[in-house]
Amino acid sequence: MNRDVEISEVGPRDGLQMLKGIMPTSAKKAWIAALAAAGLPEIEVCSFVPPKLLPQMADAAEVVAYARTLPTLHVAALAPNAKGTARAIEAGAHKITLPLSVSHSHSLANVRKTPNEMVEEIRESAKLRDASPSKPGIEAGLSTAFGCTIEGTVAESEVVRLAVAAIAAGADEVGLADTTGMANPQKIKQVIANVRREIGDRLTGVHLHNTFGLGLANALAAYEAGLRTFDASQAGLGGCPYAPGATGNVVTEDLVYMFESMGVRTGIDLEKLMEGRRILAEAFPNEPLYGYVPAIGLPKNYRPAA
Amino acid sequence: MNRDVEISEVGPRDGLQMLKGIMPTSAKKAWIAALAAAGLPEIEVCSFVPPKLLPQMADAAEVVAYARTLPTLHVAALAPNAKGTARAIEAGAHKITLPLSVSHSHSLANVRKTPNEMVEEIRESAKLRDASPSKPGIEAGLSTAFGCTIEGTVAESEVVRLAVAAIAAGADEVGLADTTGMANPQKIKQVIANVRREIGDRLTGVHLHNTFGLGLANALAAYEAGLRTFDASQAGLGGCPYAPGATGNVVTEDLVYMFESMGVRTGIDLEKLMEGRRILAEAFPNEPLYGYVPAIGLPKNYRPAA
Repeated sequence: MNRDVEISEVGPRDGLQMLKGIMPTSAKKAWIAALAAAGLPEIEVCSFVPPKLLPQMADAAEVVAYARTLPTLHVAALAPNAKGTARAIEAGAHKITLPLSVSHSHSLANVRKTPNEMVEEIRESAKLRDASPSKPGIEAGLSTAFGCTIEGTVAESEVVRLAVAAIAAGADEVGLADTTGMANPQKIKQVIANVRREIGDRLTGVHLHNTFGLGLANALAAYEAGLRTFDASQAGLGGCPYAPGATGNVVTEDLVYMFESMGVRTGIDLEKLMEGRRILAEAFPNEPLYGYVPAIGLPKNYRPAA
Repeated sequence: MNRDVEISEVGPRDGLQMLKGIMPTSAKKAWIAALAAAGLPEIEVCSFVPPKLLPQMADAAEVVAYARTLPTLHVAALAPNAKGTARAIEAGAHKITLPLSVSHSHSLANVRKTPNEMVEEIRESAKLRDASPSKPGIEAGLSTAFGCTIEGTVAESEVVRLAVAAIAAGADEVGLADTTGMANPQKIKQVIANVRREIGDRLTGVHLHNTFGLGLANALAAYEAGLRTFDASQAGLGGCPYAPGATGNVVTEDLVYMFESMGVRTGIDLEKLMEGRRILAEAFPNEPLYGYVPAIGLPKNYRPAA
């Protein structure tokens, strides 16, 4: 399938970890299957954190194993440290993302490690990857890259330093995460340019939150700056438990609509995507599901990109 | 005051015309005063339509007269035809916008005239302007410039033709209105380039709706394409009675936030803008007020553009 951009669905990980309820494994599988059937090329299906900390992710290995049976899907998982990486490799993930928070305070709150200690976890994870037969990709997800709810402004020099350190430690790629939604289009372009100057096309994508309503504008800015991989979450679920108020990933449905209407091919079928939303609504009848296009329907002039 | 962009508040016209209730004149005045005090340089305060058709606008002349007492404010009004222009001139408006719908069907539904007949209304209006002592500016607002809920796709050649015709008929400037929210960033840039090729800097601004969630992304695209005037509506009120489902202007609060956070000066104080919102909430306790920034507050790293 020809795509101009790759949208990576993070709802089953970033979305579910924020909800109070636990989605039954069978419902997770049905949701992931529906997302894959709609054309999502990659799904971050779970997080390999201790089940005691996040009971929502207790079935991580089973979910990865199931996702691996979907033939077209690139199966991604989050691991907060090398121990999690080991579990993700064992489960069969194609790609493992380690959160490397640029904000010292957020990093301590989120993974109880400093940014530099997280670089060491990436180094250990890369060794595990090298020793494994499957050799999954390792991505460093630079959290709070555009601002932190605890520290406020985050130094751009730190973003660049940690991106370089992550690649040096063995990460295959770096993503920039606006964990707190504090980015703006100008800042997005500036940080992308600064990071790319040092690590080139090892900078692959952005993970955006819609906290202050700039999610799509920031995605547009990142696209114009040359990035082609975008995390998003169906119905805009998600947030970060250690970034208070920072709720809501960019809504997959709206992001697909924006790109397709612009003539940028996502490879995703918006109608089929609604089946995933239906499963979500059934599993969480009391959770708000976000998105403009799902609420109002497609406009009369809509044509998917060709 | 130094501004990089000019945000024109259309809530008192585009917002109020869509609501079932009628805002008392005294509340309108208080709202307009609060908006001006927050730094809005221009407000479209009313529409000079027959009160029988839009009872919400029966006090148009009184509202213009009041707005004219606010020293910094550029007072704009909408007029659906030359008769309305005459009333707007008499009331003392600084600027009069005539809706020139690119979609034949929408034009007939909205003002019971074809686009070509509306060009004649602009010509008559320009004559009235020339004969008046105050000589207010005349803007042609090209409605449905990016798509129509009745006709679907709108021909770009028609947008260009009508922009040229409006200027030839005596309009001082042309604005592009995405009445139905069907624009996308790529289309915005393309149409702006096409229109500007013919009428240059007589194309001044865009009027965007957030129907499909692309309002801010489209504003960003228009800014990047070189436009510097943006309509917006406090709390995202607004729509078009003859464009079903097309509700919600770009939210003033969020647009100001986007620009200011990017370092683009609007001259508008976001905190003071909340006073206008309070007045609105009091007048319409049952209407939904939109906006991300008003709901969650400003982020910790926020600094207005300097």
